[in-house]
Amino acid sequence: MKLEKLVGDRFKERPADCVIDSHALMLRGGYMKNVANGIYSSYMPLRRITRKIEQIIREEMDAIDGQEVQFPVTMPASLWQESGRYESIGDELLRFKDRSGQPMVLGMTHEEAAVHLVREYGQSYAKYPFMIYQIQTKFRDEARPRGGLIRVREFTMKDAYSFHTSQEDLEQYYLRCHKAYERIFARCGVPDVISVASDSGMMGGSVSHEFMLLTPIGEDSIAVCDVCGFSANVEAAECKVTNVRDEVSAPLTLTHTPDIHSIEDVCAFLNMPKEKSCKAVVYQRNADDSLIVLFLRGDLDANETKLRNYLGCEIHPAVLTEESPLLAGFIGPCGLPEGITVLYDNSLKDTNNLSCGANQADHHYVGLDMNRDVPEAEYHDFAKATDGGICPRCGKPALKIHRGVEVGNIFQLGVKYSKAMGMTYLDNEGKSKHPIMGCYGIGVGRLAASVCEAHHDDYGPIWPLAIAPWQIHICAVRADDPQTRQQADALYEQLQAKGYEVIYDDRSVSAGIMFSDADLLGVPLRIVVSPRNLKDGCLELTSRDKSLSEKVPVDQIFEAVEKALASLK
Amino acid sequence: MKLEKLVGDRFKERPADCVIDSHALMLRGGYMKNVANGIYSSYMPLRRITRKIEQIIREEMDAIDGQEVQFPVTMPASLWQESGRYESIGDELLRFKDRSGQPMVLGMTHEEAAVHLVREYGQSYAKYPFMIYQIQTKFRDEARPRGGLIRVREFTMKDAYSFHTSQEDLEQYYLRCHKAYERIFARCGVPDVISVASDSGMMGGSVSHEFMLLTPIGEDSIAVCDVCGFSANVEAAECKVTNVRDEVSAPLTLTHTPDIHSIEDVCAFLNMPKEKSCKAVVYQRNADDSLIVLFLRGDLDANETKLRNYLGCEIHPAVLTEESPLLAGFIGPCGLPEGITVLYDNSLKDTNNLSCGANQADHHYVGLDMNRDVPEAEYHDFAKATDGGICPRCGKPALKIHRGVEVGNIFQLGVKYSKAMGMTYLDNEGKSKHPIMGCYGIGVGRLAASVCEAHHDDYGPIWPLAIAPWQIHICAVRADDPQTRQQADALYEQLQAKGYEVIYDDRSVSAGIMFSDADLLGVPLRIVVSPRNLKDGCLELTSRDKSLSEKVPVDQIFEAVEKALASLK
Repeated sequence: MKLEKLVGDRFKERPADCVIDSHALMLRGGYMKNVANGIYSSYMPLRRITRKIEQIIREEMDAIDGQEVQFPVTMPASLWQESGRYESIGDELLRFKDRSGQPMVLGMTHEEAAVHLVREYGQSYAKYPFMIYQIQTKFRDEARPRGGLIRVREFTMKDAYSFHTSQEDLEQYYLRCHKAYERIFARCGVPDVISVASDSGMMGGSVSHEFMLLTPIGEDSIAVCDVCGFSANVEAAECKVTNVRDEVSAPLTLTHTPDIHSIEDVCAFLNMPKEKSCKAVVYQRNADDSLIVLFLRGDLDANETKLRNYLGCEIHPAVLTEESPLLAGFIGPCGLPEGITVLYDNSLKDTNNLSCGANQADHHYVGLDMNRDVPEAEYHDFAKATDGGICPRCGKPALKIHRGVEVGNIFQLGVKYSKAMGMTYLDNEGKSKHPIMGCYGIGVGRLAASVCEAHHDDYGPIWPLAIAPWQIHICAVRADDPQTRQQADALYEQLQAKGYEVIYDDRSVSAGIMFSDADLLGVPLRIVVSPRNLKDGCLELTSRDKSLSEKVPVDQIFEAVEKALASLK
Repeated sequence: MKLEKLVGDRFKERPADCVIDSHALMLRGGYMKNVANGIYSSYMPLRRITRKIEQIIREEMDAIDGQEVQFPVTMPASLWQESGRYESIGDELLRFKDRSGQPMVLGMTHEEAAVHLVREYGQSYAKYPFMIYQIQTKFRDEARPRGGLIRVREFTMKDAYSFHTSQEDLEQYYLRCHKAYERIFARCGVPDVISVASDSGMMGGSVSHEFMLLTPIGEDSIAVCDVCGFSANVEAAECKVTNVRDEVSAPLTLTHTPDIHSIEDVCAFLNMPKEKSCKAVVYQRNADDSLIVLFLRGDLDANETKLRNYLGCEIHPAVLTEESPLLAGFIGPCGLPEGITVLYDNSLKDTNNLSCGANQADHHYVGLDMNRDVPEAEYHDFAKATDGGICPRCGKPALKIHRGVEVGNIFQLGVKYSKAMGMTYLDNEGKSKHPIMGCYGIGVGRLAASVCEAHHDDYGPIWPLAIAPWQIHICAVRADDPQTRQQADALYEQLQAKGYEVIYDDRSVSAGIMFSDADLLGVPLRIVVSPRNLKDGCLELTSRDKSLSEKVPVDQIFEAVEKALASLK
């Protein structure tokens, strides 16, 4: 490919609206163009990268006995009504009507389509286990797309679905897939992706893992234990706390706290540490706006995912008005009005001598003893794991909170979909059962962007060899010089004939433009042909990651290329 | 791949609702499953076939300097408003609103997205020509999907878009693409696909060709000249007729034709040949139901596409009621009411002594002389080319009408999209111009189904080697026999190790089931391992197309396989 003919513009300026580097570099390098909010077209360099990622995924899925199939992007609503998700999923699911008025959806995931495809096939236990997968366009109507390809509305995803006759078999396969994922990320150049326990969210099921690339630009928070290696998405990580109970409980005493609302101000005013306060956080159910009050230790934050899972419904932070029965800033567990769901976090269990709101304007209590004053309380884990917190596995106070981008996920779904959609098989005793399912996703575009995020400098992406758009980038500096032109042309032909993927820049532009364009394309190996080098009988061989920079005699260039590419693998 | 683990059911009975063979065989063979009207999921065998077709297309597009890109499936309506097609295309274009109420469409073709992707890039003449293409899911909300993958609503299509600075350059590229298409169809096993001149329809532009696989199940009619090789879609084919004028014109005479409406009945009643009648066909404009009367020779049929192109609007066959100013069955060119669009086909020019309706109940005229009685008439080509008709190229009465399936199309679009969407470049004199475009499509699934239609027998598809789901199918008849099992297992391993794609049937089923399943999978080469053959030290090697059937000594099987596959190429 001649760079001169490569469709797409490269430019120097960082686009104003880009928050993260991969987004900026992929726009600056002519990788993609925005079509609508969260919707992109890809130019050739990105399409070559995603095709290579797709092929790596395909090979690894085939290696664990996956069968590539294809589901439609557009599906009848009836399929999603069978599973119950047509109603349970919010606006992310794009619903529309076709010309005959039939309700349909755009696939954001394909559990329903997978069960539909195999429910006649899988009627005997002898057919199990099996796994089917596809690499296909998905649409998820995100409220806030961001970060270029990190969070988009339309994307290409590999989604796989496995079917089993026992939990043990699912777990074995889940582990095989986990290992295949590790190979995929390693082959794509991000071997440091870690798997973390996660919340299963709208997918259902119990056990699930996310594969996270740790990076400050990530939108997920991940708790990792430096001692035992435990890791989990903060959404799912258990929050362990050591509850301290003073020997003597002070009496519950009303205190005037004029105009003091926030937990910080209350603790400062009372001269008590935040750990000795009982904080209230208020939510409302999306369905009917009914109120939920969560009490937890003052230094901790609420984990909305845990609340959602416990309540089994969608919630949002409450909007408290004058008419509300709750008095913002002064909410406490004693004397709450009736008809409100009240929840208590584990961090309050057995504690005493706490401050808390008094449910009266400008008043708090001190001396709250949970056992004495709120004897009816039941305690659950509703708090976010914290940096420096206790590891739920090894018990050491060694949790660190990192940011990460989720590049893949795997779920043990159980029988959620097979049961809802009436898929059954006869076991070896002739009994009818629902198959147990697993599902396994990787976002192709997000993975490409994550690799860019993990491997770039100020000048452009540094693509790993296995997914780079081309392997070798030839720069003919001063192609108007006949000897340079001849040498560069010959090299281009010969390297292609040897099966290398080559991009060739023979434009009449300055070396500066040539090199900055090459940096933006991020091709691993660069060969500079120039009059100056040729005078010494040499070519200049450099790698985009700067690990290599040497002058190679013209007649040794092919061995040098071979060696260099091997070293970049 | 072991056949035992292949997901998908194969069965004997032809599904009741299948009109064409490929549809029936692809359901019977476990290639696909219907999800909704005109929407299918693919099982592994079909996905392997479509992937191979996609790869052949990709190689040929790359060979003519195509750059693979990717456009989104979902696009903002604004893009289609720019081109004007948001309004001009009917219900086939699926329109929907996203969660924020923005109007969007599902891509049925991507001219708009292509212009959007390159309009900043292509601002200088020096960037031209270039071609971009994608292989992507499309949605077209067909009113009447039919024939399995022949006419669906969701499909995978390769669509390519080229951009040029002169008509000559477009024409040269168009020819290159035409040749690439010939190679694609030949490589996919249907070298007999012919290209025919076609109507450009909603795509706009002037010159266009369709690539047709001639088959009785096709929904297109194609006129082919047996003498000079001229071919065109009947929609686009010029209808040439030799008009005969009698020496003496009879006077125009009113004739009582009680209750006689149809052209057949009128001609029989008057004892005149149909060629001597002037037939009326009535349409209405979709927009306002205004009437259009077309007069043409009684033995010819109206070509609605020609009418549509001439009128520049959508039309439909008229519904004539009591209130209508036209009297169905008695419409003629003399004495027509005002305010109706009247058109005359070339076949009436200079003719005389015709019968025609008299615009009075139960009356016709005889003795119509077009020159004398309808002097104001202008004549155009509005009739369908007919079997046995005159070839518009060589003039011989040698046209044959065939049926065909359109497996690809190419269009010279001109500046329709670049102009509408404001894409310009500066030419070498600094003048601003609109680039000239071509576009080039191939439906991947339809091509797979067409190959099946062209290559099958009663028992299943006969896949050409280049796109077959596997190359070799091993049947271990009586795998319970230890020697058979050992030999078949070894063969399976060794053939795979040599890089062949092998499907292996080692199930404990009868030879009958084994062979009928193999027929349905249509793999080109079959090796039967059985106790009976092994007793003679042999394996049985047969080809699905029955060109080969031989017993091969076990130790010569690899050479025999190599030779057989080479002969099937």
